[in-house]
Amino acid sequence: MCGIIGVVGKNPVNQLLYDGLLVLQHRGQDAAGIVTCDGNTFFMHKNNGLVQDVFQTRHMRSLIGNAGIAHVRYPTAGSSSAAEAQPFYVNSPFGIVLGHNGNLTNSAQLKQEMFRQDLRHINTNSDSEVLLNVLAHEIETSSHSAVLTADMVFEAVAAVHKRCRGAYAVVAMIANFGLLAFRDPNGIRPLVIGKNETEQGTEYIVASESVALDVLGFTLVRDVEPGEAVFIDMEGNFFSRQCAEAPKLAPCIFEYVYLARPDSVIDNVSVYQTRLHMGESLADKIAREWKDLKIDVVIPIPDTSRPSALELANKLKLTYREGFIKNRYIGRTFIMPGQALRKKSVRQKLNPIGMEFQGKNVLLVDDSIVRGTTSKQIVQMARDAGASKVFFASAAPPVRFPNVYGIDMPSRDELLATGRTDQEICAEIGADALIYQDLDALITSVQKSNPGIEVFDCSCFDGNYITGDIDEEYLNRTESARGDGAQQARPANSITQLDLNLVASREEELV
Amino acid sequence: MCGIIGVVGKNPVNQLLYDGLLVLQHRGQDAAGIVTCDGNTFFMHKNNGLVQDVFQTRHMRSLIGNAGIAHVRYPTAGSSSAAEAQPFYVNSPFGIVLGHNGNLTNSAQLKQEMFRQDLRHINTNSDSEVLLNVLAHEIETSSHSAVLTADMVFEAVAAVHKRCRGAYAVVAMIANFGLLAFRDPNGIRPLVIGKNETEQGTEYIVASESVALDVLGFTLVRDVEPGEAVFIDMEGNFFSRQCAEAPKLAPCIFEYVYLARPDSVIDNVSVYQTRLHMGESLADKIAREWKDLKIDVVIPIPDTSRPSALELANKLKLTYREGFIKNRYIGRTFIMPGQALRKKSVRQKLNPIGMEFQGKNVLLVDDSIVRGTTSKQIVQMARDAGASKVFFASAAPPVRFPNVYGIDMPSRDELLATGRTDQEICAEIGADALIYQDLDALITSVQKSNPGIEVFDCSCFDGNYITGDIDEEYLNRTESARGDGAQQARPANSITQLDLNLVASREEELV
Amino acid sequence: MCGIIGVVGKNPVNQLLYDGLLVLQHRGQDAAGIVTCDGNTFFMHKNNGLVQDVFQTRHMRSLIGNAGIAHVRYPTAGSSSAAEAQPFYVNSPFGIVLGHNGNLTNSAQLKQEMFRQDLRHINTNSDSEVLLNVLAHEIETSSHSAVLTADMVFEAVAAVHKRCRGAYAVVAMIANFGLLAFRDPNGIRPLVIGKNETEQGTEYIVASESVALDVLGFTLVRDVEPGEAVFIDMEGNFFSRQCAEAPKLAPCIFEYVYLARPDSVIDNVSVYQTRLHMGESLADKIAREWKDLKIDVVIPIPDTSRPSALELANKLKLTYREGFIKNRYIGRTFIMPGQALRKKSVRQKLNPIGMEFQGKNVLLVDDSIVRGTTSKQIVQMARDAGASKVFFASAAPPVRFPNVYGIDMPSRDELLATGRTDQEICAEIGADALIYQDLDALITSVQKSNPGIEVFDCSCFDGNYITGDIDEEYLNRTESARGDGAQQARPANSITQLDLNLVASREEELV
Amino acid sequence: MCGIIGVVGKNPVNQLLYDGLLVLQHRGQDAAGIVTCDGNTFFMHKNNGLVQDVFQTRHMRSLIGNAGIAHVRYPTAGSSSAAEAQPFYVNSPFGIVLGHNGNLTNSAQLKQEMFRQDLRHINTNSDSEVLLNVLAHEIETSSHSAVLTADMVFEAVAAVHKRCRGAYAVVAMIANFGLLAFRDPNGIRPLVIGKNETEQGTEYIVASESVALDVLGFTLVRDVEPGEAVFIDMEGNFFSRQCAEAPKLAPCIFEYVYLARPDSVIDNVSVYQTRLHMGESLADKIAREWKDLKIDVVIPIPDTSRPSALELANKLKLTYREGFIKNRYIGRTFIMPGQALRKKSVRQKLNPIGMEFQGKNVLLVDDSIVRGTTSKQIVQMARDAGASKVFFASAAPPVRFPNVYGIDMPSRDELLATGRTDQEICAEIGADALIYQDLDALITSVQKSNPGIEVFDCSCFDGNYITGDIDEEYLNRTESARGDGAQQARPANSITQLDLNLVASREEELV
Repeated sequence: MCGIIGVVGKNPVNQLLYDGLLVLQHRGQDAAGIVTCDGNTFFMHKNNGLVQDVFQTRHMRSLIGNAGIAHVRYPTAGSSSAAEAQPFYVNSPFGIVLGHNGNLTNSAQLKQEMFRQDLRHINTNSDSEVLLNVLAHEIETSSHSAVLTADMVFEAVAAVHKRCRGAYAVVAMIANFGLLAFRDPNGIRPLVIGKNETEQGTEYIVASESVALDVLGFTLVRDVEPGEAVFIDMEGNFFSRQCAEAPKLAPCIFEYVYLARPDSVIDNVSVYQTRLHMGESLADKIAREWKDLKIDVVIPIPDTSRPSALELANKLKLTYREGFIKNRYIGRTFIMPGQALRKKSVRQKLNPIGMEFQGKNVLLVDDSIVRGTTSKQIVQMARDAGASKVFFASAAPPVRFPNVYGIDMPSRDELLATGRTDQEICAEIGADALIYQDLDALITSVQKSNPGIEVFDCSCFDGNYITGDIDEEYLNRTESARGDGAQQARPANSITQLDLNLVASREEELV
Repeated sequence: MCGIIGVVGKNPVNQLLYDGLLVLQHRGQDAAGIVTCDGNTFFMHKNNGLVQDVFQTRHMRSLIGNAGIAHVRYPTAGSSSAAEAQPFYVNSPFGIVLGHNGNLTNSAQLKQEMFRQDLRHINTNSDSEVLLNVLAHEIETSSHSAVLTADMVFEAVAAVHKRCRGAYAVVAMIANFGLLAFRDPNGIRPLVIGKNETEQGTEYIVASESVALDVLGFTLVRDVEPGEAVFIDMEGNFFSRQCAEAPKLAPCIFEYVYLARPDSVIDNVSVYQTRLHMGESLADKIAREWKDLKIDVVIPIPDTSRPSALELANKLKLTYREGFIKNRYIGRTFIMPGQALRKKSVRQKLNPIGMEFQGKNVLLVDDSIVRGTTSKQIVQMARDAGASKVFFASAAPPVRFPNVYGIDMPSRDELLATGRTDQEICAEIGADALIYQDLDALITSVQKSNPGIEVFDCSCFDGNYITGDIDEEYLNRTESARGDGAQQARPANSITQLDLNLVASREEELV
Repeated sequence: MCGIIGVVGKNPVNQLLYDGLLVLQHRGQDAAGIVTCDGNTFFMHKNNGLVQDVFQTRHMRSLIGNAGIAHVRYPTAGSSSAAEAQPFYVNSPFGIVLGHNGNLTNSAQLKQEMFRQDLRHINTNSDSEVLLNVLAHEIETSSHSAVLTADMVFEAVAAVHKRCRGAYAVVAMIANFGLLAFRDPNGIRPLVIGKNETEQGTEYIVASESVALDVLGFTLVRDVEPGEAVFIDMEGNFFSRQCAEAPKLAPCIFEYVYLARPDSVIDNVSVYQTRLHMGESLADKIAREWKDLKIDVVIPIPDTSRPSALELANKLKLTYREGFIKNRYIGRTFIMPGQALRKKSVRQKLNPIGMEFQGKNVLLVDDSIVRGTTSKQIVQMARDAGASKVFFASAAPPVRFPNVYGIDMPSRDELLATGRTDQEICAEIGADALIYQDLDALITSVQKSNPGIEVFDCSCFDGNYITGDIDEEYLNRTESARGDGAQQARPANSITQLDLNLVASREEELV
Repeated sequence: MCGIIGVVGKNPVNQLLYDGLLVLQHRGQDAAGIVTCDGNTFFMHKNNGLVQDVFQTRHMRSLIGNAGIAHVRYPTAGSSSAAEAQPFYVNSPFGIVLGHNGNLTNSAQLKQEMFRQDLRHINTNSDSEVLLNVLAHEIETSSHSAVLTADMVFEAVAAVHKRCRGAYAVVAMIANFGLLAFRDPNGIRPLVIGKNETEQGTEYIVASESVALDVLGFTLVRDVEPGEAVFIDMEGNFFSRQCAEAPKLAPCIFEYVYLARPDSVIDNVSVYQTRLHMGESLADKIAREWKDLKIDVVIPIPDTSRPSALELANKLKLTYREGFIKNRYIGRTFIMPGQALRKKSVRQKLNPIGMEFQGKNVLLVDDSIVRGTTSKQIVQMARDAGASKVFFASAAPPVRFPNVYGIDMPSRDELLATGRTDQEICAEIGADALIYQDLDALITSVQKSNPGIEVFDCSCFDGNYITGDIDEEYLNRTESARGDGAQQARPANSITQLDLNLVASREEELV
């Protein structure tokens, strides 16, 4: 999972892109990058780390220009051991930079093709570098001579759709020409369009989530459609075209469960409202199937599950209490030569308030259960705090399959629910009862907010991969690569740190 | 406000102190420091910044030893423009390091005395450096020859109590001798004692809040009493004595309103429970005096007011909804040459969820109102989100007086409530109604959790300063110093960055 | 002026390239970069600064592979205000990195061509980025499908020679294919070939100066011929071909005067021996034309002129004394708000030993006079030290024209000798006599060491630019660009900081 | 060996102290520190590293005030494994900072005394921290109440002389009072006084070498006498007094051989002239005792031996040639996991010019031979370059004893000359002949420049330690501590990094 933004404004955009990345930081804390474009020149800075650590005044000062793109990265399944910061850059043709949210499922094959057909060298393991080169190749093909039009760009995107498989929400910038954004034909990852009217004309923005628009003072216009490409030239003229042959919206349902911020509206669905609905349907299930549970208090595992837990409590007319306090400041564990490692417990992250547990039957509500190790520790912590009984509700169904569309998810053998019944899972986490959301109920929770969405990618839950190209062999290969990645610990992996035109005179750096 | 910890353990304490500072980070994000003691040698590292930024592996590696103290700093009223990181160190007598939470109200006079009587040079504006030198002087006086006993230390603390005025919760370490902790005779700032039984013997800890003990795996023993001093020698033997003549617990009530973490228990009061009580009593007041308000939904301003708001809603049988989402990642505003500054709104910090406001009468609940500027912006944001009416409740009474005991609070003329009636304040923030907690109700809210506390320092609310030495002239002088401090922008202010015995070979630094 | 190295070894080359850059550091202290190649992947790190500051352990650790190129940069005339670190990288075709010493005189025109013909975007003002793209374009043209041979590479170099004007000594690496090195048809800038026999086979190196080979334990084989290209594949097979139509060696004579290290042998000329010859011929001229000077002592301006001064003294049977001590540690002048700037004198760089000047007629010997400001200060310093008379000898003729082949030289109106007679220059620097080397004598000094070189580029002295394409208009344009560059102070200039595949996990960086 | 400066000026002194440290950088490249004094406040910054790396703009900006002291450090024998940066600070009495060049030979005993008598805690292994505390204690004793006069300070220095043994040239500053400088009763380490007349009055400076005065524009007044103390108050009034009972100048003769810069004049001796004399006397010895050597050329090992070698050649009417080129840029050897270490040869430091060696009998001249490993490599390098015979001359006598007065010298068993005859040493380094300076001749060489000095500390050569307190047991203990220090590699050793009043707001640091 990653966060992306692109903007064509009427004033310098460096601060705006920086502020936007902060709002999207929850989509990736691993690396951050900004490219701006001024005339024919790109200015880029990117690095591993949080947005607030990556960008210092000396970097911002050099990020000049009224248009640009930006990216925050979370390592994706295909390159979990790699640390490639985005955006990426190629100089031929025209000069193009690109940032990407999602995952190409045919990346390895495309990398081969790129080299054989177009002699394009891909220097990292990032599928985003592959995607950029496919796009660059197709733009080279569709443009004739040094002339480039929006139509030619759309032709290139159409060709990209034909060659690429998987999930991709993309922002790209062509030097001195304009901002391009597009989404794969299933619209698996979100991308919204916003605008801001100024005295100098209209400014356009695209971003992973609407919350970025809210905070930056832009108005939500609409989503980029599945398969659609939009292009805004440097003067702020807006172009769009459907570039896929059979587009069909099938967004990743995990965005609503966990990934997106609650205050975002994506594909016309309020994430927050969906989470309330999830609480309601969980309440219905408990009322229906677990009526004998004598629940004294409903306690969310902060932060994601709070709306669901609150609505669940309301519907069941139960007391809702925030019995866990989340530690906001996270540090590191230092490995000291000759010292035994202090065992880190989940208490570094969550601390219970004793009076809410003492002698009570508590229903803990979490958004989902993935590996289950944290759930187990939390159940134990509730018991240690004096709970009589500990029930556990998951606002999402059992997670049994890996995600191949850009969410970093463990292998099947690390997923607690794979190959286990609900009773077995309950026993594993040590709860007195375990209530899972049903998948139908989850889908309905989203559709209540936007009935127009007929299909979702629910592959984490049901193993049906919407792009149709994922088989057992693919999953085995990917899972085995994850393991290898961890083992080999290659001394140098695949980052391209590219600071284009960055003023970094030595003196400034050291001041 | 600051956070302090001290520990005498059976194993290296660097990671433990680091983890403890993270838990106390909410008490001060301005600077952080750790000193450890190994044999006769101190090892220290401190700097401005968050704990996670101040300490790197190379620093941690050098912080050896099984005992130490640590500090996170929030600038205090008396030295708001200064940036002195703690702990401080003096080498005479014995070698002493000290960290302090609170504020000495007779610091200027003591600084003069120190120089005249003892020729002690105070190099910064920090009252903590003054306090350390007073303590050092008194230890020098009470000890004879190179022998030092716990009793002599307690005599010195008794002398400190006689000379110092104000609030001070202190941790100090005497080289190769032990850990000293004490609290001023009114116990204005909190300090708790914890222990951990290990195979090698008992480990002792003192910390500003009990939550640090919880997270580090220590058990809460009790609070340090007002005026009491405790001393743990390097072998882990525990000594304590009441060192004040007429100690009388009068804790700062603002700790319960805002400063402390909800999951802390200080002076036998659960902060969380107190905040629930505050919500209840606010509900009572609304039921009593504002029964005609047609409230559709109760919405907290996150994070502090959530327990109060929830309990208020429960008591009034109103819907409770988390209508504001807090941005967790905060960045900087870069000042670019020649660029207009992007206006920062409160939206960088809070974002409303439209559906919770649209067409509703909302009751916003905040912990307190200080300057009122944020409150005003939030009320407007609620209206922009479609609220029909916006009511505002403050879980604390009107803040009308500055704090002189270690909380950085604006001057009286910057406090919204100073010289204004509730109606005028309501008009200022643009609300349709404004409900303040009554001071009596606030006091009762705390006492419900521990009826044993008879007196509180409520000076922010009522202007009665518990130490009895604060007059109009003192307040004027302090407020005027604040103003000057802001204006003069002295090129170099009063930090003592002291890295004792830090391994920082150049090579390591640059690797 | 820059320094370049390329190597195809049998073991990791990172330390070897680093050590080599240190030896070439005198050719450029502005920026440094290393690229290594392991399999199909490039690993790059570069930045502004000295070699010892640019490369830290974390960078070196990621520079894996047995082949690579490296570069130290001195800003060239054409981009004196820019700060582009080398090598540069393009991914199409094949993946190529390149480092360059020299200056293209038709860079602006080529940049236009590149974009129009090949849609290649050049993001900086560096002529090296242009040169890389010309090379890349020609390799793309000469190779068919994904097959590339040494012959195809040589064809591409032949095409580069046809398109590029100016001076260029180049090292380039094609990913997973091999190391390419070539020199312009006049061989203006030096490039030598060395080898090292190991048990695993022959290792090849190319470098700007032979001294790099000496220090790294390689044996000098020969110079790369003017117009010639050499190619060493990844297995260590050596290929070479003359790729220019009418190559004619005409090396820059300033290399022997000042640029190269004395212990280097380039184009079969010992730099050291040449400098001895220069001293001899100066002695002859003094004996011939200035026999009435009563010289008591000959004193070199360290370091370059020492061999010339010593031999001059020997030939004239005069006392030679090192009367100036050079300060080896250079710092910065800090600009403090509100402080008057301390005037920096030449004494920060040179300090006279009084007893060698007191009451004597001294002959100061310097390698050349460029702006003349330092010469004037030195003459004055000699007088202040008590010299009776101060004579000044320049081992090079008057510098009257700018260099367009890669040496950063002032505009003609800043060159002291432009438009001035020797007498006028003597007056300007305040000397009692001024003796310049004659250009013929300088040429002869070099030819004595290698009579085979018939022609030199002596344009700094005589205004005859060997490439034949430099006219008054070109010089005016360049000089005016220098001026503009200084004035405009563009907030972001033309660096491409490119760290390919650099492991820089956040944790490592901060440790 | 260290370098020290102190100044009381009429304008800010930060840049002046920085420039001065650069000039003294040859006396210590290990660490650097500056303290300034403004009113009653000290401002300090110090760290490991070269001057140019330690001080950045943000540090300089905070070093305000018109008076201050500064220090560059070379690890001394007693604490070779430690890395304590100077100056040191104590706050009682008055606030004192101190920097020191030399070594206390009774440091361990004083450390004990300090704690027992005065309860003063010494936190590092540095004898400078001990010396500061002795001084502080004696100032406390001599001053009564808060009044301090120059006389009281001089009394304190007199007491220091009584308690301290060894070598010490000291600069210290007492807050808001003035600059103190003194030298041990033998004047083993140098210290000179300079002044500068300005419109606002006289500025005074003290520094280790006169070259610092030259470069900073001050005039040399005289040396601080052995045992003398000088005091300059903040207004610039100059006081001095002889504080030792039986002072007797006995400067370290190694200052003239190697330590000091040639352009310095210390104790009225021109270092440069002394080195010429050393060459002369060596020539005499060769003419006398080695007349059969057929020397073709005299070649210095740069840089120190150049004056001696030149004068030797002149006197013997031999050709003098600079056959070795010194590499000016020194880097690091990186230890890469899994890579064999590249063997570093002396060629990283020195490169021979072949034509000066080929077929010749060369006389190499070095300033001294310590361990002999480099000498051996150089002799071999001369042979490899084609020398027929290689003779070796040392401008100093055989080094057979460790230095205990502040020069970091190997143990006796690591000194090549200890226990070996000249013939054996000659065989060890592989030379065809070895000529050592005689100690008498060395002493005469210095006395020719200042006949007034009757005694020198020549302990390195003859084992007679001038302070009379060094016995076999002391040497054994010190040498054994060196060994231990190397082995134990204590994770944290004895640095006190003390930044007093440094402005280091987080933002500035990161910009």
